[in-house]
Amino acid sequence: MGGFFTGRTLAGIARGLRSGDESPAGLLAGALESVDPDLNAFVTLDPEGAEAAARRAGEELAAGFDRGPLHGVPVAVKDIIDVAGLPTGMGSAHFDGHVAEADALCVTMLRDAGAVIVGKTGTHEFAYGGTGDVSVNGPVRNPHDRERMPGGSSSGSGAAVAAGMVPLALGTDTGGSVRIPAAFCGIAGFKPSYGAIPAGGVFPLAVSFDHVGVLAASAADCRVAYRALTGPALTGPALTGPAEAAPAEAVPAPVDEGAPHGRVAWIEPLEIDPDVERAVRALFPDAPSERIDLPGIRAVFRAVQDAEAYDVHAERVAEAPGLFQPPTLERLERAGRTPAWRYLRALRERERYAAEVAGLLDRYDILALPTLPITAPRIGETAGPLGPHVPAVVSLTCPWNVLGLPALSVPAGTVHGLPVGAQLVTRRGAESLLFAAAERLATA
Amino acid sequence: MGGFFTGRTLAGIARGLRSGDESPAGLLAGALESVDPDLNAFVTLDPEGAEAAARRAGEELAAGFDRGPLHGVPVAVKDIIDVAGLPTGMGSAHFDGHVAEADALCVTMLRDAGAVIVGKTGTHEFAYGGTGDVSVNGPVRNPHDRERMPGGSSSGSGAAVAAGMVPLALGTDTGGSVRIPAAFCGIAGFKPSYGAIPAGGVFPLAVSFDHVGVLAASAADCRVAYRALTGPALTGPALTGPAEAAPAEAVPAPVDEGAPHGRVAWIEPLEIDPDVERAVRALFPDAPSERIDLPGIRAVFRAVQDAEAYDVHAERVAEAPGLFQPPTLERLERAGRTPAWRYLRALRERERYAAEVAGLLDRYDILALPTLPITAPRIGETAGPLGPHVPAVVSLTCPWNVLGLPALSVPAGTVHGLPVGAQLVTRRGAESLLFAAAERLATA
Repeated sequence: MGGFFTGRTLAGIARGLRSGDESPAGLLAGALESVDPDLNAFVTLDPEGAEAAARRAGEELAAGFDRGPLHGVPVAVKDIIDVAGLPTGMGSAHFDGHVAEADALCVTMLRDAGAVIVGKTGTHEFAYGGTGDVSVNGPVRNPHDRERMPGGSSSGSGAAVAAGMVPLALGTDTGGSVRIPAAFCGIAGFKPSYGAIPAGGVFPLAVSFDHVGVLAASAADCRVAYRALTGPALTGPALTGPAEAAPAEAVPAPVDEGAPHGRVAWIEPLEIDPDVERAVRALFPDAPSERIDLPGIRAVFRAVQDAEAYDVHAERVAEAPGLFQPPTLERLERAGRTPAWRYLRALRERERYAAEVAGLLDRYDILALPTLPITAPRIGETAGPLGPHVPAVVSLTCPWNVLGLPALSVPAGTVHGLPVGAQLVTRRGAESLLFAAAERLATA
Repeated sequence: MGGFFTGRTLAGIARGLRSGDESPAGLLAGALESVDPDLNAFVTLDPEGAEAAARRAGEELAAGFDRGPLHGVPVAVKDIIDVAGLPTGMGSAHFDGHVAEADALCVTMLRDAGAVIVGKTGTHEFAYGGTGDVSVNGPVRNPHDRERMPGGSSSGSGAAVAAGMVPLALGTDTGGSVRIPAAFCGIAGFKPSYGAIPAGGVFPLAVSFDHVGVLAASAADCRVAYRALTGPALTGPALTGPAEAAPAEAVPAPVDEGAPHGRVAWIEPLEIDPDVERAVRALFPDAPSERIDLPGIRAVFRAVQDAEAYDVHAERVAEAPGLFQPPTLERLERAGRTPAWRYLRALRERERYAAEVAGLLDRYDILALPTLPITAPRIGETAGPLGPHVPAVVSLTCPWNVLGLPALSVPAGTVHGLPVGAQLVTRRGAESLLFAAAERLATA
């Protein structure tokens, strides 16, 4: 699977660019040469635009104008995020031929940081699914095993980074859609607190839970990208609920003196392949076990996501149902029948779960659990021993969308020869704790 | 129909109490003697509790301790509002035998103002209907014509005041339930800005729209009661949306110099008995006509009320459906099928309508329109020329619940020999403008 960026770090690339050993144009050429059409990671490539951006980046660096660690770095962008002048296809026939007029805010921030946008990566149709195999563009393939799913919905971003085509990709994460492909593909995926990276210009799936996130080879690279996408720390009023946008890193992260990298609790996954659980649990041998009502939070996720997703798509379902992929249409039709009173109760239950988890996060700095309860299924398979894949793949990730908490998936070895991910969760605004904990894992 | 309080004002009663011509005990005796069981206005009378309260009020006044204009005044309370030690029946078999442990906040405020609670008045079952004829206690009768509905849901409060049993009654108003019985019964009914009278201890119908209000013979008497229920003006942060509680009278009411009682616009009622329209329009000969999408706001009302009402009653519908009156059960079952996405859209539409009406209230101080599009239907009749009564009766009142605006219904003569009401609406916090405009009408 080795692509141009396999085994490289953003820090190493940045050093190479500044020492003159590398050039933005050279990195871009390496990226474009690494694109493997068989993996189906990219749905749009923009060699002309990227070459112009790489040229400018090279000129700026040569002139001593340094935009920081992403300057001159090739980046891929999920195909539900607008990039001006390129198609935003959403993995759907509904948006065939649709070209974005303006950059999404997160893309503007990437460009301000000097990144070179290589192209758009495949997504599960409308990001409405965590398997990544349902798209008008066909399934993206997992670089570790091309017969298997990469996970979704940021499937192409996961595959592009895992195959070394780019060192960094943008994704979105409503129920796990950054962390799931990261874990299935053996890379790192990170979503910060709700609202910490602005979602303007990103096509909505479920506005209460939609997060923008990043995928890269390692947690350290996610941190570099996250800092570029959030800028200096904001200050703001006290946060009161999960629907509030959190200022990035606004809350100083308290760390227990006796545990220099943070007090860690193991959250027991209730329904999981026992081999996956053992592999991830082994990374946290000293962490006490705690329980959270993960199925209860998943039910909240389901009610709210379905209501909000149908709100987005009601006219398309009514007027052109045949343009959806059949599994997406079936999910939407069911979602449209979610009763309003269940939505109202889900919002109240969210408050209750938020208080429960806040209590846990008073006692611990980090909650650790597997990112996924299974390894990557074969393309075409819809269910396994834990039941249908669609709900199973979000079961351990969606709680942190419901609660708007920062969550990071890092590679945790392999099981059955396939990658698994360890997931770290913390308080809002305490993103730095996650990166510190991941660093400890990486050096352990 | 003359009861003890017919033709009397709260100001006159207060003077009589202070001159020694009247006593709280004498007023209470007059109230109790005026109760006409055939009208079915009261579901519970509390002569012992009321007599004790009247005695205390008399002693306080005699001792020179004056609690203000409600001191010693008999008041009736709608049967969805808790009064400690009395049944709160909700007009429903579900609450047979249920006794309130504590006073609702608005009842506490009444007692602090020295009022004497006479008893509980009949309500449409769970306040879920504006006709007032559906209740385990049987229909309340309109004092003007006992074969006709009093309107609801504060049916008993409307009938008790209209028949002179009490000079003041508490009601609740989610889609018009104070103003509708006021108009059908020929008295005044007032609901202030959303949240201005606290709703604690009131059984919910639809929490986004539930208001506590007052019914009395005239607007002037509503003003006296309102001041007693809100106390000194609060100050607070700027209001941002209709779901926010408004501090009472916090916003100084700007009045156009050229129109000393406020600039008035006539809001065209689109579906209405033309005789009712003519009668009310005649009170505002100089007001220019304006249009608001009243049916659109009613659709918002319906979606949100139904979702929130079913949320309140889901367990009762599932476990003991037979205890509901059949029309209530039928409404609830339909309400439970309101799709969540429609609720979400209704909330957004509310924002749009709020902005539209705010624009109108930049140009006018008062919006005037009929309270009801029809006169009181016969008991047992479910539809008329405008269609089913249940939606018709809220068509002109519910928009001001959706938007949380203060609204006052005042008597506007008779049509077909039955009372009609004129409705005045203004900006949040500008309640005093309504009373000034009503005074102008009363003296015109």
